[in-house]
This record gives sequence, C-alpha cells and structure tokens, in this order.
Amino acid sequence: MTELIIRMQALTPEAFAPFGEVLQTDGVAPQMINQGNTQKFADLARVSLDRDGRAQVSIYRSTAIELPFRICSMERHPYGSQAFYPLHHRPFPIVVALPDSAPEADRIQAFLSNGRQGINIHPGVWHHYQLSLEQDSDYIVIDRAGPGSNCDEHQFDQEIILSQ
Amino acid sequence: MTELIIRMQALTPEAFAPFGEVLQTDGVAPQMINQGNTQKFADLARVSLDRDGRAQVSIYRSTAIELPFRICSMERHPYGSQAFYPLHHRPFPIVVALPDSAPEADRIQAFLSNGRQGINIHPGVWHHYQLSLEQDSDYIVIDRAGPGSNCDEHQFDQEIILSQ
Repeated sequence: MTELIIRMQALTPEAFAPFGEVLQTDGVAPQMINQGNTQKFADLARVSLDRDGRAQVSIYRSTAIELPFRICSMERHPYGSQAFYPLHHRPFPIVVALPDSAPEADRIQAFLSNGRQGINIHPGVWHHYQLSLEQDSDYIVIDRAGPGSNCDEHQFDQEIILSQ
Repeated sequence: MTELIIRMQALTPEAFAPFGEVLQTDGVAPQMINQGNTQKFADLARVSLDRDGRAQVSIYRSTAIELPFRICSMERHPYGSQAFYPLHHRPFPIVVALPDSAPEADRIQAFLSNGRQGINIHPGVWHHYQLSLEQDSDYIVIDRAGPGSNCDEHQFDQEIILSQ
C-alpha cells in the first residue's frame, strides 16, 4: 500500500476557513475598551453547541511528537465546536479533513500554527488529536460538555505520514 | 476622606470561591485521553450564560499599570460569567467584590495570580477591569455575547488604592 505524505502549510484564516476559525490578533482590528486601557480582539471563535450542550473550559497538556509522525486515526465531535489556544509560543501542527462519513485520506490537510495562533474546529470536522512539537505543551480548550456520544473516531489502514 | 488600601493575597481556589473559579492545573487530577498522549484538566470553569446568550472567545491586550494603583470603578456582568486566562506567565492582580447593588469599598478583595492561573468570574460579581503588571499582556477571555446590557459600572468617591 502506498505511503501518503501530508506536508504542513502555514495556518491562515483563509486557508483554514473550511474547517473553522483561526484565533489570532494579527490582522484583526481591536475595539478599545476599559477607558482605553484594553484592546479587545472580540469574538474570534464561534462556539457552537447543540441544545443540550454547555461550554466547558479545560487545559490539555499534550506530549511532544517528532516528525515524521504517523497519522493512525482522526476524530470528530458532531455536537460542538472545539477551540485550542496555545499557552506556549511554539509552532504546533493541526491535521484536519472535511466533514464526511469518514475522512478521505488524500484530502487530509495539515497546518502549522506559528504559536500565537489558536484554532476553533467546527462541529463534524475530522481532526487529529492535539499535537505538539519540541516539548510537552499546554492549550486552553473550549468545547462542548453534555449528554450523548460526542466523539466519532476513524482508524486508517493506509500509512499516512505527517511531515515538515 | 480616608484612603483605603487594598493588599493582594495569593490566588487560591478556596479563597476565590465566593467570586468564581481558579483555572489552574496545580492540584487538579487530569484524565488521560488520546491514547495516553494528553492530560486533560477538564471543565475548570463553569461558563454561565442567560438563555439569550452565547459563549464568545476573545483576546484582551491590557496595558500594564504600576502599583500603587487607584481603583476608581468596578463593573459586573449580570447575564454571564467571564473567564480570563493569561497568555503570558507573569503575575497579575484581580480585584473583586461580592454581588450587591454596589460594591462595598471595605469588602473589596484583591488577589495575585501566579501567572499560570486564570479566573472565571461568576455573573454579578463586581470586578475591576483586567489589570496587568510589568508589561502589556494578553489574555484569552471566554464570556457572554448576546442582546441586552450586560455591564453595570460603579464609580467610587472614596480613594481606594491597590497595593502590593
């Protein structure tokens, strides 16, 4: 079976738009609030929840990987969005595929955050679990808590390799 | 009129409990997820929203102040909680007072985050707008967006000074 190599592209709001939003301040015009003492970069992520869901805030600490790295599986959350913002300033990879009954291996896309960019993944978008480079790294995560099974997983038979 | 000096105490979940939650990993037992590659410190903040509200994720960039600093006003958000998590690792002050028609000056409390602690302020809790020390600093903010006036402000006549 052929090995499939996925290379990372720079994370930009335009390129990531089919999958969700990029949380960044670059290129965003802030509102001035608090008598001019605070720049507010407002409403960077659309938190989506089903009717039974509520927003939860967590911290994820993810073990560093080395590239090249084998993508064995992807997951999706049908009932809510999932936002990650890095609490470090190191680049990290994001691996996504469009909503479908299963992710199509040859349409997987990978992005590299510059370390000052977070992402918000729309409900149903396939993604690899959060990956870190260089060091174990923390992220603030805003997603959905609530009843029901909100995680589908897909295992790949094909050898899919995330590369620089 | 007498000057009132408010001194900062260390931020702990116990001391902050009347005002909201502390978002921290210290002392929290993580769940292991993602085949053992991620420690999840789950559900650190209770995001509260009224029925018409939705959760929004923003970044606030706040100008550094110097201590001692005069507390001229405080605000509260009746319809939703407001969480702040620092994207830097520097200590920062938090100034709060219990819900009431107005904050009582002599019951104001101030806390100092160690820079790896965020907070989630419950609806209705009076607080000073986000303050930073040393350098202008960024915070991830999770709060309520939606219709209606969600910010009350109170101006103090008395001279209230935030100190070390």
